[in-house]
Amino acid sequence: MNPSVSIGPLAETLPGLLEKGGYSGIIVIADTKTRRFCYPVLKPLLPKHRLVVVEAGEVHKTLDSCEVIWQAMTDAGLDRHALAINIGGGVIGDMGGFCASIYKRGIDFIQVPTTLLSQVDASVGGKLGIDFRGLKNHLGVFSMPLKVLIDPVFLKTLPVRELRSGFAEIIKHCLIADGSKWEKIRKTDFEDQDWPGLIAHSVAIKSKVVEEDPKEKGLRKILNFGHTLGHAVETRFLEKPRSQQLLHGEAIAVGMLMEAYLSYRRKMISKELFLQIEEFLFPVYGVVVIEDADVEPILALTRQDKKNRGKEIRFSLLDGAGSCAYDVVVAPAEMRKAIAYYQKG
Amino acid sequence: MNPSVSIGPLAETLPGLLEKGGYSGIIVIADTKTRRFCYPVLKPLLPKHRLVVVEAGEVHKTLDSCEVIWQAMTDAGLDRHALAINIGGGVIGDMGGFCASIYKRGIDFIQVPTTLLSQVDASVGGKLGIDFRGLKNHLGVFSMPLKVLIDPVFLKTLPVRELRSGFAEIIKHCLIADGSKWEKIRKTDFEDQDWPGLIAHSVAIKSKVVEEDPKEKGLRKILNFGHTLGHAVETRFLEKPRSQQLLHGEAIAVGMLMEAYLSYRRKMISKELFLQIEEFLFPVYGVVVIEDADVEPILALTRQDKKNRGKEIRFSLLDGAGSCAYDVVVAPAEMRKAIAYYQKG
Repeated sequence: MNPSVSIGPLAETLPGLLEKGGYSGIIVIADTKTRRFCYPVLKPLLPKHRLVVVEAGEVHKTLDSCEVIWQAMTDAGLDRHALAINIGGGVIGDMGGFCASIYKRGIDFIQVPTTLLSQVDASVGGKLGIDFRGLKNHLGVFSMPLKVLIDPVFLKTLPVRELRSGFAEIIKHCLIADGSKWEKIRKTDFEDQDWPGLIAHSVAIKSKVVEEDPKEKGLRKILNFGHTLGHAVETRFLEKPRSQQLLHGEAIAVGMLMEAYLSYRRKMISKELFLQIEEFLFPVYGVVVIEDADVEPILALTRQDKKNRGKEIRFSLLDGAGSCAYDVVVAPAEMRKAIAYYQKG
Repeated sequence: MNPSVSIGPLAETLPGLLEKGGYSGIIVIADTKTRRFCYPVLKPLLPKHRLVVVEAGEVHKTLDSCEVIWQAMTDAGLDRHALAINIGGGVIGDMGGFCASIYKRGIDFIQVPTTLLSQVDASVGGKLGIDFRGLKNHLGVFSMPLKVLIDPVFLKTLPVRELRSGFAEIIKHCLIADGSKWEKIRKTDFEDQDWPGLIAHSVAIKSKVVEEDPKEKGLRKILNFGHTLGHAVETRFLEKPRSQQLLHGEAIAVGMLMEAYLSYRRKMISKELFLQIEEFLFPVYGVVVIEDADVEPILALTRQDKKNRGKEIRFSLLDGAGSCAYDVVVAPAEMRKAIAYYQKG
């Protein structure tokens, strides 16, 4: 297990860290949801601190929210020896970590991920950032948290849809790096999955990949399986009515289906594996309606993907169960076919 | 000499870098002044590129200007393999480097400092950032440029006041690290100083210090001599009419006099050295009028200094000619005395 990640009750993992750190000040960054459901668990464990609350949701992962956070840090008189604690999902982790890394050129921060998605994905790996003009994670830095504290108690506060969203990244980790775990989860009903075990498994895989390639020069790109088209779909759907918007993992499930299709078309995976993926993902996630009018905007959005070089769009595609290739150039015509495949359901 | 710094005509230093880099795109970041006076030197050396121009001056070193730059990078379709070239003084270097380090979690950037101040100071050391709510460099990162290209030809485009501003950092480098050079410059008239030689000298000193302590855990703090009160004075004067505002080096000259006084009061330097500093600095920089109403606001601003820990204000003070101590705690009452000393001229 990654030494910078601890899984267990906050009451057991946090107090020692605070004692050792000797911080000159503490700020807790939460959103309107986690203030209500999660902050009450954290609060009794902390000395005097400032709380700053931003609006919940990806649409608020913006410079405007950062300014609110930086203003609160300034008002609290935080110096470079202060600590930020980010309690929330991926948005709070990415944005709070970004704000901490930029404030006075960087202060320590602890991630307390409260959604399954952020526990298995966003909180590990040091990628921080915010959206800009609707482009996902367009601004950001690489910076490691002092520690990631994962307390499974927070899963109890989550709606099923949020659990399902996090599960998409767990599935991804199995598909790209652990074929036998894939066999196991695909034969288990969603309701019967072993969440604490799967969290530890995902954190271990992601940590190992990130450790080998922290700046995403090569291997780390495999973590982007499902994300090239998935991110584009997610961004496109931000323009739709709120009721149609997708959680990150829901969009990634769409992206994984499209990109598994690309992997299959290129004969990188067997028909059998492709069908397994279809048969497992569609029942859990259903089919998202992608209109014909969405297709070209989705393609245009893939051009903003950070893995690209020049005008080429580069994918991470499966080349086996538990194995993934990266820097695979895919032309727009082929992407259109993958979207059309998904549209047919 | 620091291998990441080249001093000489751009035509000799830039083309090889571009060839080696194989960049997918190039953006040049300039301000309204350097577009006119300096960009014409750079332009013929570049392949196809995008130019983004922001308003000149410290008051524009803000998130608003960053948004203009990030938008231009996005519009130009820059990916992670693109290059930013920052041509301008400290504001453009700090802000352009910050924007490049944040865009898609970081692209390469080259600094082309065009003022004496930025050639001897801001372009070396990897401190990047912007002001926030009037607080200097309140947001930023540590990130090293690919290369700093110093072309002395740009000094010819500078007004005398700008030269004098840069000279303050040269004086600082001598006072904190090279007593014999201090002897030399203090016996030479301002008009007769050897600028190319002094640039190389300052870059060498700053590079050495930064290399030993890149993240300012200890030694690097000596570079802050004159800056604790100097920054506070500079920030306070931003609120005054434009005609009274100070260039960075002019404010640092004020700060060096006040902090030399603190060094002398604490018997860290001899009376002789203190008088030398006075006799050299006042004729070059004149006396800036600090009103009594400015005193408490200046003290309040020192509390925002990034070197502080908790409520203590920490200074870097001289302890000899060519020698400097750091983390020296100074109480507000003593700071008031230093300001009062300066006010008397």
